[in-house]
Parts: sequence; structure tokens; C-alpha cells
Amino acid sequence: MFDNKDKTEINDLGEFGLIAHLTKAVELTEPSTIKGIGDDAAVLDFSNKKTLISTDLLLEGIHFDLRYVPLKHLGYKAVQVNLSDIYAMNGKASQITFSIGLSSKFPLEAVEEIYEGALIACKKYNIDLIGGDTSASAQGLVISVTSIGHAEADKIAYRSGAKEGDLLCVSGDLGGAYVGLQLLEREKQIFLDNPQIQPDLEGKDYIVERQLKPEARMDVVELFEIYGIQPHAMIDVSDGLASEILHICNASKVGCKLYEDKIPIDPMTYDTAREFGLDPTVCALNGGEDYELLFTVPQEQYDKVKNQLDITIIGYITEEAAGCEMISKSGNVHPIKAQGWNAFKAGK
Amino acid sequence: MFDNKDKTEINDLGEFGLIAHLTKAVELTEPSTIKGIGDDAAVLDFSNKKTLISTDLLLEGIHFDLRYVPLKHLGYKAVQVNLSDIYAMNGKASQITFSIGLSSKFPLEAVEEIYEGALIACKKYNIDLIGGDTSASAQGLVISVTSIGHAEADKIAYRSGAKEGDLLCVSGDLGGAYVGLQLLEREKQIFLDNPQIQPDLEGKDYIVERQLKPEARMDVVELFEIYGIQPHAMIDVSDGLASEILHICNASKVGCKLYEDKIPIDPMTYDTAREFGLDPTVCALNGGEDYELLFTVPQEQYDKVKNQLDITIIGYITEEAAGCEMISKSGNVHPIKAQGWNAFKAGK
Repeated sequence: MFDNKDKTEINDLGEFGLIAHLTKAVELTEPSTIKGIGDDAAVLDFSNKKTLISTDLLLEGIHFDLRYVPLKHLGYKAVQVNLSDIYAMNGKASQITFSIGLSSKFPLEAVEEIYEGALIACKKYNIDLIGGDTSASAQGLVISVTSIGHAEADKIAYRSGAKEGDLLCVSGDLGGAYVGLQLLEREKQIFLDNPQIQPDLEGKDYIVERQLKPEARMDVVELFEIYGIQPHAMIDVSDGLASEILHICNASKVGCKLYEDKIPIDPMTYDTAREFGLDPTVCALNGGEDYELLFTVPQEQYDKVKNQLDITIIGYITEEAAGCEMISKSGNVHPIKAQGWNAFKAGK
Repeated sequence: MFDNKDKTEINDLGEFGLIAHLTKAVELTEPSTIKGIGDDAAVLDFSNKKTLISTDLLLEGIHFDLRYVPLKHLGYKAVQVNLSDIYAMNGKASQITFSIGLSSKFPLEAVEEIYEGALIACKKYNIDLIGGDTSASAQGLVISVTSIGHAEADKIAYRSGAKEGDLLCVSGDLGGAYVGLQLLEREKQIFLDNPQIQPDLEGKDYIVERQLKPEARMDVVELFEIYGIQPHAMIDVSDGLASEILHICNASKVGCKLYEDKIPIDPMTYDTAREFGLDPTVCALNGGEDYELLFTVPQEQYDKVKNQLDITIIGYITEEAAGCEMISKSGNVHPIKAQGWNAFKAGK
């Protein structure tokens, strides 16, 4: 990934030096940021809007494998994953804090790459980086991100707002990040067995990017604003469609019908899943890390969502007693079960 | 610290099970918390006040040594350390997120202890725990805390607000946490050399507590409110008095005079430092982790601060060109230098 010859030792800079060095490229552009990095706490002004907060921990060997995740992508993804939670509330993400724990194997240049990826994500999504913590780590790389956003009270979409009769919708397509991961894992194994063989990812850009460089769906939240769509309930797809549907149904005390043939799956995801002997539907249901938005809207908004190219209606909300079920392509009915990604079973 | 016989494996619960288990004791009492744990993001309402955010990373082997830090204390301290940053802005801390990364050596009971300590701190300081992340860790224990608070715009005390002529003040006493750490390190070494010997910390409760169970100074911020004291600048003493004074002076573009004989040092800190052959003043200047508040107030507020038992006036602010200097007990003048605690040199 990087060699340490001619690299700068972080020790030489010290903590304050490192922070000053890393944050010198940080610009504040969000009107709600009053004070960013450089005091005990950041100061934000959301005037009469509600404040939204979400946080994630990303740990080496659990959430990422540095043998195939480029550091810049890692910084980028760490931010995206977190912003996704703010968009999933139908909010505007505006700030993040970004903390890194670094083992001594990392030279300054490696940290710079992580940070650069994070700042590219911030710039693209108009996010101010307003704080964080930087520390040595006795073990692997640790990244902790907290994202902050805001929304008007009546715009916030909780998981618990779904109503019987609502349309169940999802943005983008599903399963790609999981299938991309299978591909990266396979190429890593081939490389470990024979380091002379270069990874063969040709023509697979889309699903590799879905895994390494996901994009949080700020654009979908903006589209809601433009078209006057108000989701009753919303969640982002981080653990797989099945798990997220159950979160909405449990929180809202409703059931649902999901149509397998409506689940949006990209042709490359489909074909590559098949190559691996995987069922593409199962990849979408249980794969995770797609960071699409799953939401429900009242039927009256059918006209507003049906023509959105990037939104698919995949089912509808029922009463709770009817349970959460998927109608398969062959017409069979299966209960939806969560087998989502489990950070306590991933890694080793 | 704990043995794993008859203990519950975290794997058996899964991530959602673990979160549900750990958070079942969480109560929300802060009026500003609209939605806590259980959605993509927490929702907070600070109406017309400013939002304050601060975050810290605590890593095993760098920030704590599980050979002498009880897990409950660790959870408690992780919260205190973070709240301290909000109080250092003269704000009211109201919420935290608490994330843990756990290696498989930890049984459920160990995590419960960390969490219990965190919740005790929350309860004592009227803080709502509103979110977090829980993950396996391929290596050591990782804790990440983000604290959230609020303040009226004109009450916020930045580092940059000190003015020439201001009184330089500090709450409580200094150096205790560092001397407490020396004591714990010595006893650990004795124990490692001969496990039959029990630690001898008798009569040293105060400084051991300063290290293991610090208290963020919410009470000082409340006292400011009661007595109408408005600090011009404020910071919490996490890296040692010298480092914090320089932060205020650099951010405010001022100098200062610090009187060594005014630095508040508890007799137990003083005597124990001497036992270790350490200069108590150096412990206060460079030791860190005291989590007291260092602040400046205009001279007109002298009458308001002079009779506060827990506040000591230790010097005054000068023009920038005069530099930052300490007048020693013998009357010599020394430039103040930061040799504060460096997370990149601590640990290994």
C-alpha cells in the first residue's frame, strides 16, 4: 500500500503539529458554522431548525481491509457513510468531525491521503470539517466520524412514520457494494497466493466503486425538496434491504409487501453475482453498504415518485398483523428476515 | 481484570441485540432531546441557542491501560473528558454519543461495565445518551465519544477572547491526575514483578481518583451563571497548564504573567510528587488530565472571583509582545513552554 522509505514520521510533528498540518486545507463554507477546528468545541447555529447527529466507528480489519482499500477512498467513504445517516432523516448535512487513531506503521503521507479523501467528500457535499481527534493507536487504524445536520421539524423523516397503504420506495440500485466486495476479496486471495498476478477488475468499475467509493444520496433529499415529496418514513440501506425494511416496519408498527421483481439491481451486479454463484436478490436483501435511501410515501404522492428515474417503488405498507413479506418472482410468499451485515461476525 | 468463564459471548447477541441490551437503561431527560437512540440520527432542539460539538477518541494502550483502569471508571472518564470541552466553552452539555469497538477478549459483562460507568456520568451531569456505534475490534478497546451542548451566543467563551489586563484564573487544583498516574504505574510495575504483592494506594485516594475518575467542572459554569461572571476566554486543562495557557495566549494574541506560587496544588499531590522526585510545579504545568477550567476575566470582575473558594487567580494577561512568562517562587522569570502530554509519544 505504501512503503515508509523517505516518509515523514508523525512523531516528529507531535499532535498539535499534525492537526495543524492536516487541517490547513480546511475551509469553512457552511453559513451554520460559527467556529470550526481550534477551540474546545465547535459552535454551530441552526437558528430555529432541529439539530441532527449521527456517529460511526470504522475499524481496520473489521470495516475495511487496507490490502485493497486505497487510503484516499477510505477517507472518502468514512464521510459518505456518515452523511448518509443525516440524509436518511431527510436532513441537510452540514458539518462533520473526523477522528483518526494511527499506528506507528503509518507515515504522515498515509494520513494525508485519508484526510484528503475526507476533504474531497466534504467539498463535494458542502460539508464543513469542524473538529476531531488525532491520536496514536497501539494497534490498527481507527476512524470515527460524527456527522451533524439540520432540518425543519416537520420535514424530518423518522423510521417510525410509515402508514398502512404507503408506497415502499428505494433510490438507485442494490446489491452492488456487496458483489463488489466479493470481487475484491477474490482478487486479494489470488494476489496473496501469487503476488505476481495483478488484480483483474476490468469492466467491473461500477460495482467496485459501489464498494470502495459509495455516494450518500444528498441528491435524493434535494429531489424531495424540489418535487414536494415528504417521506413518511426513511432509512439508509447500510445493512441490506431486508434489515432496513424490518427496521421501518418494527418502528412504525406496520407490515409490508415487497415484490422481488421490483428490486432494482444493476445488470453488472446481477451478472457478477451469478458468476459467484450468488442469488442477486439475496445480495440486495442481505448484502449491505449500498447507502441508498429506503422510504415510504403516501399513495397520493404516487404521481410525484413514479417518474423519478432514480426511484423505484418496490412494494407497499400493510397493517402490522399481515407481517413483512416478499412476493418472489415465481409468486411465492416468503417472510422477510434480517440477515444483515454483522460487525461482530465480520472480520475475524 | 475479568475472566471469561461463564461469561456471555457478545457474538451471541449480534450488533442490534447488543445495542438493545446496553441501551435499555438509557433514559432521556433533557428537554432538548427530541429523538435519541433508534433512528439514523438523533434529533435535538436548541431553539435559538448555538449548538456546541466536541469529540474524543480513547484508545487502549495509548489513553488507558486496562491493567489498572477499572472498566466502569473508564466509561465514566470517557464521558467526563468529553463534557469538559463543552463546559470549557461556558456551555451547557446536554447529550453524548458513545461508540465502542471491542475485541473478542471482552465478554458482554465487560462492556456492560464500561456502559454502566458512562451512564452514571450521564445521570450525574444530566446528559442524554443519544447514539453511538458498537462494533467488533480486531485489536484493542476503542472508545469514541462526541459531546453536544448549547449556549447563548453572547455567553460562549472562546480561547481567543482574552484581553490585556484580564485576570488569569483556574478552578480546583492541578497536577494531581499526573501524580496519580505515576503512582498507578509504579504499583503496576511492582505487581508485574511480583503478582503476590497487592497495590499500596492507601491514603492516596484523592490523586488516584483525579487520574481514574475526573470530574468535569459543570459546577464552575453554573457558578459563573449564578455570580454573573463572564469569562473572556476559557479552555479546559487536559494537556497541562502550560500548554493551555499558550493556547489561550496564541489564540487571543496576548501574553501573560503566571505566578508559580499561586498555582493551586493539593498537599497530597505536592508530597507524592516529592516522593517521586518530581517538581510539583512541573507536574501542574505539564502533567495534564486535570480537567479543570482555565479562564480569564476582566479586572472589574475581581470582586466576583476573589472569594470563590474553588477559583484561584494565578496571573494576568499582558500585551503579546511581553511574551508568556512564569515568575518563579524565587522571583526568576521563565518563558512558559508547552511540554504537554503527547498522544504520539505516550504508550509505545
